[in-house]
Amino acid sequence: MSNTKHFQPLLMNPYPRFSDIATFMRLPVVRDDDPRINDVEIGLFGVPFDQGVTNRSGPRHGPRQIRDQSSLMRRAHRVHGIYPYDLANVADLGDSPTNPADLMDSIARIEDFATRLSARGTLPLAAGGDHLISLPLIRGVAKKHGPVGMVHFDSHSDTWDEYFGGYKYTHGTPFRRAIEEGILDPKRTIQIGIRGGLYDLADNEWAESQGVRIIYIEEFFEIGVEGVIAEAHRVAGSGATYISFDVDGIDPTYTPGTGTPEVGGYTPAQAQQMLRGLKGLNLVGADVVEVSPPFDQTGNTALVAATLMFEILCLLAMQVGAAKGR
Amino acid sequence: MSNTKHFQPLLMNPYPRFSDIATFMRLPVVRDDDPRINDVEIGLFGVPFDQGVTNRSGPRHGPRQIRDQSSLMRRAHRVHGIYPYDLANVADLGDSPTNPADLMDSIARIEDFATRLSARGTLPLAAGGDHLISLPLIRGVAKKHGPVGMVHFDSHSDTWDEYFGGYKYTHGTPFRRAIEEGILDPKRTIQIGIRGGLYDLADNEWAESQGVRIIYIEEFFEIGVEGVIAEAHRVAGSGATYISFDVDGIDPTYTPGTGTPEVGGYTPAQAQQMLRGLKGLNLVGADVVEVSPPFDQTGNTALVAATLMFEILCLLAMQVGAAKGR
Amino acid sequence: MSNTKHFQPLLMNPYPRFSDIATFMRLPVVRDDDPRINDVEIGLFGVPFDQGVTNRSGPRHGPRQIRDQSSLMRRAHRVHGIYPYDLANVADLGDSPTNPADLMDSIARIEDFATRLSARGTLPLAAGGDHLISLPLIRGVAKKHGPVGMVHFDSHSDTWDEYFGGYKYTHGTPFRRAIEEGILDPKRTIQIGIRGGLYDLADNEWAESQGVRIIYIEEFFEIGVEGVIAEAHRVAGSGATYISFDVDGIDPTYTPGTGTPEVGGYTPAQAQQMLRGLKGLNLVGADVVEVSPPFDQTGNTALVAATLMFEILCLLAMQVGAAKGR
Amino acid sequence: MSNTKHFQPLLMNPYPRFSDIATFMRLPVVRDDDPRINDVEIGLFGVPFDQGVTNRSGPRHGPRQIRDQSSLMRRAHRVHGIYPYDLANVADLGDSPTNPADLMDSIARIEDFATRLSARGTLPLAAGGDHLISLPLIRGVAKKHGPVGMVHFDSHSDTWDEYFGGYKYTHGTPFRRAIEEGILDPKRTIQIGIRGGLYDLADNEWAESQGVRIIYIEEFFEIGVEGVIAEAHRVAGSGATYISFDVDGIDPTYTPGTGTPEVGGYTPAQAQQMLRGLKGLNLVGADVVEVSPPFDQTGNTALVAATLMFEILCLLAMQVGAAKGR
Amino acid sequence: MSNTKHFQPLLMNPYPRFSDIATFMRLPVVRDDDPRINDVEIGLFGVPFDQGVTNRSGPRHGPRQIRDQSSLMRRAHRVHGIYPYDLANVADLGDSPTNPADLMDSIARIEDFATRLSARGTLPLAAGGDHLISLPLIRGVAKKHGPVGMVHFDSHSDTWDEYFGGYKYTHGTPFRRAIEEGILDPKRTIQIGIRGGLYDLADNEWAESQGVRIIYIEEFFEIGVEGVIAEAHRVAGSGATYISFDVDGIDPTYTPGTGTPEVGGYTPAQAQQMLRGLKGLNLVGADVVEVSPPFDQTGNTALVAATLMFEILCLLAMQVGAAKGR
Amino acid sequence: MSNTKHFQPLLMNPYPRFSDIATFMRLPVVRDDDPRINDVEIGLFGVPFDQGVTNRSGPRHGPRQIRDQSSLMRRAHRVHGIYPYDLANVADLGDSPTNPADLMDSIARIEDFATRLSARGTLPLAAGGDHLISLPLIRGVAKKHGPVGMVHFDSHSDTWDEYFGGYKYTHGTPFRRAIEEGILDPKRTIQIGIRGGLYDLADNEWAESQGVRIIYIEEFFEIGVEGVIAEAHRVAGSGATYISFDVDGIDPTYTPGTGTPEVGGYTPAQAQQMLRGLKGLNLVGADVVEVSPPFDQTGNTALVAATLMFEILCLLAMQVGAAKGR
Repeated sequence: MSNTKHFQPLLMNPYPRFSDIATFMRLPVVRDDDPRINDVEIGLFGVPFDQGVTNRSGPRHGPRQIRDQSSLMRRAHRVHGIYPYDLANVADLGDSPTNPADLMDSIARIEDFATRLSARGTLPLAAGGDHLISLPLIRGVAKKHGPVGMVHFDSHSDTWDEYFGGYKYTHGTPFRRAIEEGILDPKRTIQIGIRGGLYDLADNEWAESQGVRIIYIEEFFEIGVEGVIAEAHRVAGSGATYISFDVDGIDPTYTPGTGTPEVGGYTPAQAQQMLRGLKGLNLVGADVVEVSPPFDQTGNTALVAATLMFEILCLLAMQVGAAKGR
Repeated sequence: MSNTKHFQPLLMNPYPRFSDIATFMRLPVVRDDDPRINDVEIGLFGVPFDQGVTNRSGPRHGPRQIRDQSSLMRRAHRVHGIYPYDLANVADLGDSPTNPADLMDSIARIEDFATRLSARGTLPLAAGGDHLISLPLIRGVAKKHGPVGMVHFDSHSDTWDEYFGGYKYTHGTPFRRAIEEGILDPKRTIQIGIRGGLYDLADNEWAESQGVRIIYIEEFFEIGVEGVIAEAHRVAGSGATYISFDVDGIDPTYTPGTGTPEVGGYTPAQAQQMLRGLKGLNLVGADVVEVSPPFDQTGNTALVAATLMFEILCLLAMQVGAAKGR
Repeated sequence: MSNTKHFQPLLMNPYPRFSDIATFMRLPVVRDDDPRINDVEIGLFGVPFDQGVTNRSGPRHGPRQIRDQSSLMRRAHRVHGIYPYDLANVADLGDSPTNPADLMDSIARIEDFATRLSARGTLPLAAGGDHLISLPLIRGVAKKHGPVGMVHFDSHSDTWDEYFGGYKYTHGTPFRRAIEEGILDPKRTIQIGIRGGLYDLADNEWAESQGVRIIYIEEFFEIGVEGVIAEAHRVAGSGATYISFDVDGIDPTYTPGTGTPEVGGYTPAQAQQMLRGLKGLNLVGADVVEVSPPFDQTGNTALVAATLMFEILCLLAMQVGAAKGR
Repeated sequence: MSNTKHFQPLLMNPYPRFSDIATFMRLPVVRDDDPRINDVEIGLFGVPFDQGVTNRSGPRHGPRQIRDQSSLMRRAHRVHGIYPYDLANVADLGDSPTNPADLMDSIARIEDFATRLSARGTLPLAAGGDHLISLPLIRGVAKKHGPVGMVHFDSHSDTWDEYFGGYKYTHGTPFRRAIEEGILDPKRTIQIGIRGGLYDLADNEWAESQGVRIIYIEEFFEIGVEGVIAEAHRVAGSGATYISFDVDGIDPTYTPGTGTPEVGGYTPAQAQQMLRGLKGLNLVGADVVEVSPPFDQTGNTALVAATLMFEILCLLAMQVGAAKGR
Repeated sequence: MSNTKHFQPLLMNPYPRFSDIATFMRLPVVRDDDPRINDVEIGLFGVPFDQGVTNRSGPRHGPRQIRDQSSLMRRAHRVHGIYPYDLANVADLGDSPTNPADLMDSIARIEDFATRLSARGTLPLAAGGDHLISLPLIRGVAKKHGPVGMVHFDSHSDTWDEYFGGYKYTHGTPFRRAIEEGILDPKRTIQIGIRGGLYDLADNEWAESQGVRIIYIEEFFEIGVEGVIAEAHRVAGSGATYISFDVDGIDPTYTPGTGTPEVGGYTPAQAQQMLRGLKGLNLVGADVVEVSPPFDQTGNTALVAATLMFEILCLLAMQVGAAKGR
Repeated sequence: MSNTKHFQPLLMNPYPRFSDIATFMRLPVVRDDDPRINDVEIGLFGVPFDQGVTNRSGPRHGPRQIRDQSSLMRRAHRVHGIYPYDLANVADLGDSPTNPADLMDSIARIEDFATRLSARGTLPLAAGGDHLISLPLIRGVAKKHGPVGMVHFDSHSDTWDEYFGGYKYTHGTPFRRAIEEGILDPKRTIQIGIRGGLYDLADNEWAESQGVRIIYIEEFFEIGVEGVIAEAHRVAGSGATYISFDVDGIDPTYTPGTGTPEVGGYTPAQAQQMLRGLKGLNLVGADVVEVSPPFDQTGNTALVAATLMFEILCLLAMQVGAAKGR
């Protein structure tokens, strides 16, 4: 039984899981003007943004649908054998401000949100939004922790240089920018599940030349979940590490609600196993991105995303719990 | 411009309407343990309940989808020329407790919720849930105001006696029970849009024998919106009056997400006009019921329901504002 | 209360309306080898056929979805004030045989089915299937009753001569063939709701030259339901008359599950009123066609179709009841 | 070629598979008042019930959609090399009575249905309905065969004690009740695929303390289909055994139409292989449950369920055929 | 029969309407580098842009879905009694360039496209895209024709000043900008169907102060189609006039695939009648905007849009034909 | 970087991938009357035909949806390390003529289209349409190359003899006919993934007696992708070989938009790996068939199909490039 005074999800009695306002994991909402904000150790929040999308639009609607589906999560993680909400104080922080009329202003607002959050010592766990949100989020994290390593699940490297004739800020470029800005350490970055056609055979050369470790899907099928886990630990090491999970890393049958699906990925079960294997990394933040509800009105994609968020939440909670001696 | 200190919906800047946690009309959430609860003059809440459904299940999921769609509502009502949130203090109260394993216990929990709300002087505006919820809600209202009259939009009279061999509590019986309990005054009750096949040609005889005024859809087509409005004022008079809006009163093309659709109803525009015409009644509470999201994953049914809730909210706010001299 | 020994729909207790095998109106199934087949006065059956479709496929799946939705129908018709199942012996006859590999053989199988049915004195009420099925059905009816008049609801005249270079049997040609075959009397035929673009401005000239009375949608909006009813009685007169209802006569918002939608039609409520106004015609059979479930997985189109079938069923039952002195 | 006089599915000629009334596997319907009822050796039937659902509603609509999709099944099982309908007399028995207004009365009606069926010597193969139906079904079976063992496919153990403050009958408790009632032998019970978050880390302790063998999904991935089959035979042994297949045992991408999906399960192909491996058990009945059509209007979930039913049907038919020397 | 040498839609034989590449109205594609481009009198094209959307994203996908659905259009307009493709040379010009990474660059690209088109003397008929595209389109038209009047169908006035704190280019501001730029004559502008809640009761004051004639939906219901037509002719007069049709002017049940639906609009049939009534205006261009396919995967919204485009196309063709003496 | 003068897909700048007319892979359209037709080395085209379907209709709509989804493909194949459009001249040829009113005439039109294409030396890569199209396509190919071998991905052998009482041309018979006609060499034919129930245990005996190598799904699971590839090379050898890919070979969860789904197939990733392994065969044409958009409005099935077409296109391009020394 859970036994601490931390925030806890709404109980099923008298509030069945289909009921009440949809917050992440049915947790309380704690906003900036709430005095409890300083006690939040892990902050779940949405980043309703899709101005970086170069193809099918929609991830601005992601956070809401993930919140809705996250009611299916429960309080204990059987495999880890823990109650995450007893190990850390976790809350739903609402959404980051954005500005649908100005991409760069949205980025600035997200960075500002992330910076304040890091300054308070809260570990960020964001629900996107398109993948460009990782850039301002990592900026916020890096202000506190310095350059971070990254475990990056995706079907795309997202290290293109520019789009549409010189445009440098899209959901295909966040990690090129982050490496250039010196806030992401390419030598401590691993990308898992990269696949799909290319615009140019040299598309991923820049990333590899910087030292990024790319596990293409063919290698994934070869070395399997265990091999990936070992490699992720080897690459990320003990330094500050960020997890970024683009749901298009998973096969689009499982996550059809996304903008740039690439046939032939891993399964959610394999994703869960890989995430569980990341226990022990030195995590400083995470995001789950590219859920585009208009392309999956059933909510199944968001259910997968909520499940991944719960897995990452448990990693963060175990880390917090260990640090706090709980 | 809005100019009072009442609760206001979240502003579009920096929170675009697709963003943040979905509450009714983007209003603040005020729960029982919040000291501001006593200032709430109009309380929006969900009743996630469908144990009264005799046919297609699903309305337990209604409140959430209505909350989501209600983000499309705005702050001013052009036709009435008002800012409802300046006229009354309005908040989202969360959901009423329910118990999916015991119909009668759910009814008790809803009645308890409604009773406390009335006791605090808050006008209830509920989002269902199936139509059986009107029974405990009216019980709560009647404890404060005595027997109420009702303007009831529906394709069914919901005054059947029993189902399945002696069962008296289903979504087809709430108003029979309410009349029997003496909390609903049949002579001050008007039902608008009744249609569809019958189990028995005498199905509606009991209601009519009690004095209920039924406007069948054929009469609606004949006397039109204006005729209905006049008749509603005549029947309801100046006594305490409850509005109950079953979305299946509207043609199911507009509101397909419902459990017992009956082809051939009025349009949402006509419903809006009828509701606007109810200005001046002495309202003590209202509900919008039978939104069943699994049967309309597009959310359009819930959008209609949110729009109807906004119309009713404005009626209530004008009444509160007038009483308070705002 | 119902009081005869005729077939009755399955009762809601102990079989709620969502339960049990989906037959038309929850009626018993009576097949050719069942001795009760000779007592069936009105036979509901499916014609799962779409080989006549020139555009979007799918109506072969119509009968099943209509059966499923028809569970929402009840036992009494309030406006007519009757219990149709007490006035006539009505059953679900199953589906007509068809042959998806040979259009002409399907037509022959349907004609054979209709002929046997007419021979037994059963009034046919078919659920299509594309509109070409009306040709073999009218053949069957005409064998018993001679050339029939027709009240035809549709957005298309379906009197084209040929398609694709000389092909004479498609869902755009049944009534040209029927007139040529002398089994449909064009002077006693009225078409209601015709609209949409044309291949050729002369498309409907042949029909009009034969004496068919076409009420284009513009005239419908002008003369209204009452005007149409009067005209239908004038045209069809007292002779044997067939009702053919193509759901694309209705606006496609109400009936999106159809192959050749034409924006801008009448509503289901208007269709119901027109059908009710046909009381008193000398009916010999009817069909409701062009429901294409793959284009409306929600089932709403089929619900409209089931409702129209119930309206027609009541017309037929009143006629049978009057003839039999019930 | 099939060569016996048992009931056979409707032939494709002249009734193509998309045609005619949707019964399980296109088999004849044989109800209680049909003299042939006593010859039915394997009875397929629906249990349209979802009053035990604690979260997303809908399985009351399961049996119909499974019937519809089951038309895609054929007459021979290639891997077993058999014609099941030649080995046993199989029929669709229609649905069990239920009562949507009273959970306990529904349970009683289902038990009564199952008891009569067992008394006639018919092996039950039910389509749910939520998982609580297994309780009255096993009661019926146990009256004839005594306490049964069980091979249970699921993502949940369904051995919780109570919900919502003391309520003991939900779809999360059937097997706790069955063990307590002495009709299910926990030591001969194996559960396959259990996963997902927990309310309490001790959630499954009671079951394990009773001797239930739980194969969590992690063990499934480790020992594989062959390992599970061996273990199932070891646990169930030669005693009377029931198969209960909750479609949420399968990954929700394959079976999204269910109420409590848990990401990360096995595939339908693996499920088929496991079921085929159960050949040789001493089977006394089975169910396939938790298909919730409103959450999957495409019908794919029901197609999987129909396929599983066909697999189980073949197991039962081989057993009957062997016993009867066919 | 059609008798000129102008471009004609692909014939149904041997290319049935469901077949071949989806172009607008099945017309040939004529691009800038095609010498026939100079002969195009009416140019249909897409503007795949939704960077001006302040709420639900998606209209960038509009042009494709409209092209797909436009295959249901035919060659003759029965009510006007014309063959539009014989009266004018009409082609599909492909899409305007856009830049999803830079709103202002997209606007510049669209303006450039429209300018070249006008310079060639081609009348533009655009498929959006969100409503902001009207600004660069009118810029292009005004370069040739000077300031234009406008008949504007919509539920919103789209004359807000700014969003999100000073941002002037969104789909809520195009006509404010156009009036300020002097390319849209407010005194010759009429807006039809305005409704919905407001952010501020003064939202539409600026437009009205400039002389824009707003017909709110209440007035529409009062004066009807005929009243609106008369008023549109009075306001627009004989000067150069642009038609802009936002599909959210229509009730969202008919056009659910849009980003800012407002319950309670006119029907597509009424829209058709209003458009037909605009015959005789001096038209210089038109657009149909705000079709958002992700919110209506059925394609019905796009079918309405294609139908509206066909109506406008006929108006333009009659005007061209009259000018050219065809 | 791409460096030849062959046809290239539309560039993302200034035409983002969601924009412009949907052609296969965004390639130029080259029709029969275009002088460039003779330079096309690989011709992509649609065959919008479903008259051979014996169960669920719809594949006539396949080519359009595949074209739409194929915009997600890119220009380079990472695993092969090639730019296919530099190795061969590839174009979209539009659709083959068909005749929805006459199955045999459709077959003749398709054969004629394929024959002209082969005569010009263009390698055909068709998007179906139901599987019967393979017959006329192979006829066209065989006229140039003589009898072909085949690598056939499917869940059905499609070598039935007849349906519905003597009908020999359905989507279940194409390869029986092709073998009988001597245009398909059974000894060089391999079928991969066959599964599902059978009508008769002898269903596949004829094929096997002719020498066809059938890899049932059980064997696939046993020998895996590598085993299948080896066997395919062994069977097809160095002779002219055709690839036919029925998307129902894949598990229906990944490709639900198909008419005869069989639960329990391989994944798209496995399909990609198998196709890549076919490099080196002597290919003369290919098709991807049985995509039925009405059964998957999300487009995911078509996305898989487009991905498979891109894989096959690369095989063909490598072969052409090698032959031409590019």
